[in-house]
Amino acid sequence: MSIKKKTPSESKVTMTEMVFPNDTNPLNNLMGGRMMHLIDIVAAITAQKHSNRIVVTASVDNVSFNKPIKMGNVVTLNAQITRSFNSSMEIFVRVFAEDIPTGTTTETNSAFLTFVAVDQNGTTIAVPQVTPETEEEKQLYESALRRRQLRLILANKMNPDEATELKSLFFKV
Amino acid sequence: MSIKKKTPSESKVTMTEMVFPNDTNPLNNLMGGRMMHLIDIVAAITAQKHSNRIVVTASVDNVSFNKPIKMGNVVTLNAQITRSFNSSMEIFVRVFAEDIPTGTTTETNSAFLTFVAVDQNGTTIAVPQVTPETEEEKQLYESALRRRQLRLILANKMNPDEATELKSLFFKV
Amino acid sequence: MSIKKKTPSESKVTMTEMVFPNDTNPLNNLMGGRMMHLIDIVAAITAQKHSNRIVVTASVDNVSFNKPIKMGNVVTLNAQITRSFNSSMEIFVRVFAEDIPTGTTTETNSAFLTFVAVDQNGTTIAVPQVTPETEEEKQLYESALRRRQLRLILANKMNPDEATELKSLFFKV
Amino acid sequence: MSIKKKTPSESKVTMTEMVFPNDTNPLNNLMGGRMMHLIDIVAAITAQKHSNRIVVTASVDNVSFNKPIKMGNVVTLNAQITRSFNSSMEIFVRVFAEDIPTGTTTETNSAFLTFVAVDQNGTTIAVPQVTPETEEEKQLYESALRRRQLRLILANKMNPDEATELKSLFFKV
Amino acid sequence: MSIKKKTPSESKVTMTEMVFPNDTNPLNNLMGGRMMHLIDIVAAITAQKHSNRIVVTASVDNVSFNKPIKMGNVVTLNAQITRSFNSSMEIFVRVFAEDIPTGTTTETNSAFLTFVAVDQNGTTIAVPQVTPETEEEKQLYESALRRRQLRLILANKMNPDEATELKSLFFKV
Amino acid sequence: MSIKKKTPSESKVTMTEMVFPNDTNPLNNLMGGRMMHLIDIVAAITAQKHSNRIVVTASVDNVSFNKPIKMGNVVTLNAQITRSFNSSMEIFVRVFAEDIPTGTTTETNSAFLTFVAVDQNGTTIAVPQVTPETEEEKQLYESALRRRQLRLILANKMNPDEATELKSLFFKV
Repeated sequence: MSIKKKTPSESKVTMTEMVFPNDTNPLNNLMGGRMMHLIDIVAAITAQKHSNRIVVTASVDNVSFNKPIKMGNVVTLNAQITRSFNSSMEIFVRVFAEDIPTGTTTETNSAFLTFVAVDQNGTTIAVPQVTPETEEEKQLYESALRRRQLRLILANKMNPDEATELKSLFFKV
Repeated sequence: MSIKKKTPSESKVTMTEMVFPNDTNPLNNLMGGRMMHLIDIVAAITAQKHSNRIVVTASVDNVSFNKPIKMGNVVTLNAQITRSFNSSMEIFVRVFAEDIPTGTTTETNSAFLTFVAVDQNGTTIAVPQVTPETEEEKQLYESALRRRQLRLILANKMNPDEATELKSLFFKV
Repeated sequence: MSIKKKTPSESKVTMTEMVFPNDTNPLNNLMGGRMMHLIDIVAAITAQKHSNRIVVTASVDNVSFNKPIKMGNVVTLNAQITRSFNSSMEIFVRVFAEDIPTGTTTETNSAFLTFVAVDQNGTTIAVPQVTPETEEEKQLYESALRRRQLRLILANKMNPDEATELKSLFFKV
Repeated sequence: MSIKKKTPSESKVTMTEMVFPNDTNPLNNLMGGRMMHLIDIVAAITAQKHSNRIVVTASVDNVSFNKPIKMGNVVTLNAQITRSFNSSMEIFVRVFAEDIPTGTTTETNSAFLTFVAVDQNGTTIAVPQVTPETEEEKQLYESALRRRQLRLILANKMNPDEATELKSLFFKV
Repeated sequence: MSIKKKTPSESKVTMTEMVFPNDTNPLNNLMGGRMMHLIDIVAAITAQKHSNRIVVTASVDNVSFNKPIKMGNVVTLNAQITRSFNSSMEIFVRVFAEDIPTGTTTETNSAFLTFVAVDQNGTTIAVPQVTPETEEEKQLYESALRRRQLRLILANKMNPDEATELKSLFFKV
Repeated sequence: MSIKKKTPSESKVTMTEMVFPNDTNPLNNLMGGRMMHLIDIVAAITAQKHSNRIVVTASVDNVSFNKPIKMGNVVTLNAQITRSFNSSMEIFVRVFAEDIPTGTTTETNSAFLTFVAVDQNGTTIAVPQVTPETEEEKQLYESALRRRQLRLILANKMNPDEATELKSLFFKV
């Protein structure tokens, strides 16, 4: 069966949130786990829009939390698909926090997640391929291969020696 | 100032949860983001118990979701500290799901997170060192160094060539 | 004190949500009250971004619910400011629901809300005026006056005979 | 099929709530959207009791928020049916806030909502007519016709010139 | 300092709730713990209204759950004060569930709770005495003494032999 | 049908929780009703693990709240089965609160609950008997009979004169 191609812009999703008291730690900053929850939801919506299917989270790559998001900040999450591999999709999420009194916006986090499209019985099902358009989309499309190799190595599903794509860029050997 | 050492067993935490409808996707499986939220909370409690301080999430390593957790399963999360580095602590979380009708338990996920101990103003503050006791604790203590190097490389804070510890194990070069 | 003018596009907000089981009625449709809650949040964020202030809801105009939003639909709310009156701001929210299997999107609701900007003591404070740019923004800017008169009449704060703007359009007398 | 008549007192509902931190804005006042959510729930229960059916929200009339409800106040919502039109019901909700230290109670909001009774397939179904008893119930019953005309005009479902009932009272023409 | 007396009707509270999916067990019945949560909230509001103070739960007497409350039922909780003892208040809560399709209402649970009034520092503070009016209120006022003795015995704060009031009624000795 | 026996340790459950702002009263202490909710969940999980069945709460014995649990404390709940009676199970829950800055842990509450195992239609079904192992488990097993008699008397299901077990210990008659 042939599956049509779709561009990243066809499934881009923006989510804007207020930080509620229950989402914060004793320093009144948004908790890491709550942020991961929001990132998963916005990425899942993007994967659903790209595949027109139910999707399940397959993995979340390393996420770091360097810049605290204060209570009262407005949080914006932008999600876009980078590339699909048969039934799996890699989604890139960027998180921004805006300080209302000053109007200044800071990028606070970014994350790569993978989702798998499934039918009502939970069986995996092929999804449309991704046709990147902008320069940034093309770079994310290319680098998706390296991130996939790193994921497979970390999950003990690939021998590091076979990760030629990753090896040449990660370590200059 | 000298800081006393503590063993991992002094701050071990077990969290048991029921899966509620709002935590599930259309296949009635626990959603990835909700799982990340629970992992963050149980790990944060362990870091608080080890440091006797407020803690903030610094990073969450790659987590994969291969085995779905069904509605009605009982979820158990075990968190323990592996090693501390000045003010930061690495916490290891293992997640188990028990199917009530059969009584069978499966390990579904595991994750490494790092937390930083802070005072009331958010300034980082030194934490007790970790004294591993069991064989497994000693292995987790040793491998913490490699995971830390990988984290620093992924965050562009370390040149891959300097990651000697990681290099010798990750790639046989 | 002079207050700078801002365009509607400077404070536009998009919020995307999944419909969770607790948000639905026995027919598995999103409940009206939960929709009102989401509309209030997205509109409040827009008012905060326009005014760079804490804002409080002053009124919500008549909202009708003709098209049910099904569980599993993706809900998108777009909020934009239409006009400001000293310390009050009128925000226009449009709600869209996308059916994932077919990819079809329907406009399900729209609403006008007013917010007042306040300082930390709750005292009202002037906000930037609105400079509409597009044709639609200009029409919303103009019609804001009529909606404001209707609101004042409904709140018994204006004599219907004084509502000349509204009268000429609403009833051909 | 004949449908029996019911009085408003047969379906009156009182709901009392505490204001929790997550329901409040940065000034520690109950948020407008949360109030709308409560109003929708209490009104839906009244419509269910009157019709003995599943009900869906059809519309919420203009609501204004002039008096803030403080954290720690006790909120009481009283809902009663005013009149039914075939399968639709108009519900009137009055909201009161009590300040615990002084014991003083203030009416803070009121709202008119309409609900439609449906069967399990979502098909509309006739409901009992309303027999008002008290003087206030009779006035609410009469004025329901005018509110219904205003709603139809606002939804572009009635030509203002046909709204004779509304016209004679709203504008002295 | 003299404290004025108040009648039970001055602080009576009615709370009406819909049962949401997250509140139910796999048989779609309201969970016991969620019911206890609602009982505690409605009783606390009654204690606040009687004392015009912050209150804290001191005890919850034996509660049994014989009649399941189904998803879709309307739950009504009625709370009233029975008697006060210096700074503590006993509150009686009765719970009713109405089946919407048939309109039949069943009493499903009842509970006695005690609360203590405190000031902002958490120090206990005297509350108004209770003046029962109706026959039922007088019986609840009288029997409060026996329930108090049982509570003290169960908490190992009273020697069973001293519980003369309880003894004569509980065991015919 | 013969039902195998199980020890209490086979179904012991530990639940660890952080206290979130919405769980607290105006003194920043965990509310009694929220604590009851947690106690019910952890006890239900234990009953599920012992019976490998769906369970419903049948009763909660008197619970007292003498020691406040502060926001920021870590709450640990330990649940174990004491004894089963055909299809019903008595579960004992002990609650501990740890103050993070000092690392001191206090037992704050304890509770006895009973659950009934049911099949998918809600029909009660026999559960494994309990084989106590430790001295404490044996004492809890023995005293379960007296608590059961007190429960039956309080629910008017047993004549006090028949409660020989209870009588001899409770009142020295």
